[in-house]
Amino acid sequence: MGVTVVGSVAFDALETPFGKRERILGGAATHFALGASFFTDVRVVGVVGDDFGADEFAVFQSRGINVDDVEQIAGESSFFWAGRYDHDMQVAQTIDTQLNVFADFDPVLSAEARGSSVTFLANIQPDLQRRVREQCSGAVVTGLDSMNYWIESARESLLQTIAGVDVVSLNDTEVRMLTGQPNLARAAREICALGPRVLVVKQGVYGACMFSESGFFFVPGYPLETVVDPTGAGDSFAGGFFGYLDCQLADGEAGDEVLRRAAVYGSVIASFAIEAFGSERLQSLTLPEIETRFGEFKQMTHFEAQPLLAPATER
Amino acid sequence: MGVTVVGSVAFDALETPFGKRERILGGAATHFALGASFFTDVRVVGVVGDDFGADEFAVFQSRGINVDDVEQIAGESSFFWAGRYDHDMQVAQTIDTQLNVFADFDPVLSAEARGSSVTFLANIQPDLQRRVREQCSGAVVTGLDSMNYWIESARESLLQTIAGVDVVSLNDTEVRMLTGQPNLARAAREICALGPRVLVVKQGVYGACMFSESGFFFVPGYPLETVVDPTGAGDSFAGGFFGYLDCQLADGEAGDEVLRRAAVYGSVIASFAIEAFGSERLQSLTLPEIETRFGEFKQMTHFEAQPLLAPATER
Repeated sequence: MGVTVVGSVAFDALETPFGKRERILGGAATHFALGASFFTDVRVVGVVGDDFGADEFAVFQSRGINVDDVEQIAGESSFFWAGRYDHDMQVAQTIDTQLNVFADFDPVLSAEARGSSVTFLANIQPDLQRRVREQCSGAVVTGLDSMNYWIESARESLLQTIAGVDVVSLNDTEVRMLTGQPNLARAAREICALGPRVLVVKQGVYGACMFSESGFFFVPGYPLETVVDPTGAGDSFAGGFFGYLDCQLADGEAGDEVLRRAAVYGSVIASFAIEAFGSERLQSLTLPEIETRFGEFKQMTHFEAQPLLAPATER
Repeated sequence: MGVTVVGSVAFDALETPFGKRERILGGAATHFALGASFFTDVRVVGVVGDDFGADEFAVFQSRGINVDDVEQIAGESSFFWAGRYDHDMQVAQTIDTQLNVFADFDPVLSAEARGSSVTFLANIQPDLQRRVREQCSGAVVTGLDSMNYWIESARESLLQTIAGVDVVSLNDTEVRMLTGQPNLARAAREICALGPRVLVVKQGVYGACMFSESGFFFVPGYPLETVVDPTGAGDSFAGGFFGYLDCQLADGEAGDEVLRRAAVYGSVIASFAIEAFGSERLQSLTLPEIETRFGEFKQMTHFEAQPLLAPATER
């Protein structure tokens, strides 16, 4: 039982049409961990500088997230990313990236981290993801995220890493870029042929879809009238997805129905995450809110089948 | 009972990565009529030249579509459109448009056309759509489609026309362009505030969604591995939508459940339409094929709700 996430824990500077934040808790592992914490025990493997203080650690602790595997390096700064979104809210424009402590990140996992039933390799260099994967002997389910940068600069390594995990989570642009295939269904088949059981494709405002041996599943985006900040939406989605999956693994089931609900819980968590800057919304989120929105997602795609009427069947 | 569609009946020249057609039956009213013909009686109001021959009329007749309101003008040519799609298959590049007989299209509807229970105003000049709308005294449900060209050149007239119909069908780019609102949910609220009960937003490969007083409904795109030609997808969708709606009106029900199924039947018909050039696939389509795919659409978004397990509910 339990999810281990390996990835960035960072500070972000964010600007969207709805405001800005000069310095806010961010990082893929942060968004993932908060999302997953509603469903199961979560452990973060990461590295921060000594600018990372009690307030930041408190965010994790208040959600019961274990940070024993977050190394703090004295005299150095945490990973920092500055980005901006314009009105379409789909693609971030990077203004600044300072890797700092993250440049030498090459984690050796604790026995507890290795023993988690689910391991998620957030977006880091693919060789590094593979070295982490090899350490996770206890994992029943492994997943990864990546990005355009690694697809372009480390494609072969990424393909090798993908072959070694169960669930791949990418956005649709990345799926097309990785395969060179404009048709999503074909691209998905190519990726699953590398090894993974499941491909989750994040599609921004349109939602997310999932390809697996059980077929195709789609969850729409929640029709928010105000998206304040999409940063971390994909990682929050993955947090909800793998967190829910893990709490069901404990119950012995991880079939198609569980994967479908995991994709919906991922969408629910992501839909909350984008309602405020950074992880602010997930910090105040409650389980009843999650369950209510889960019900709304059900309603958003629900319809009753009914055979066509007799006059039509004669056509 | 019955649907009247008013719009273009044309010849198209089409080129996609999967082939080309030099001269093929096309036009918004054609695609709509074929799509609707699986569900109800359909009548086309349009105009063609004397280049429109027995083979073209036979396509309508073989699906039982009434073409008594299609005027044929001697010595003139039918509307002609030439377009090309590249690999993303989302946006057509227009190579040539020859309005020909369509330039002076200003139909006076027959008594039978006026008496249909559903009227669909396909993409034509908005003043003209309004003049047709005013003739349709028998219509229980009216719908319209439009395009970027009219949004830019006849915006005020289009807004006035929209105010007089029940269902507006546009793609997401058009919805944003019409309202100047990048957020789709807000844009939808603005459009429905003009008068329509329902806004259907076509989203290309992502599918389609529907905003109404009953809330938000989403149908994903069918994950085809080969999209041969997207021409007419939106009109075929509308055909399935309004055709199904009409066959249910006869049964006295047009509530939220019927609208949802209409959106699914629209998506089913559109998903077949794009499997071949022009209307070729709809010409060979059968009702059992439609029902089978309807079931697949059900499966694509289906999930069982299940309360979170006890350990998680304590979180």
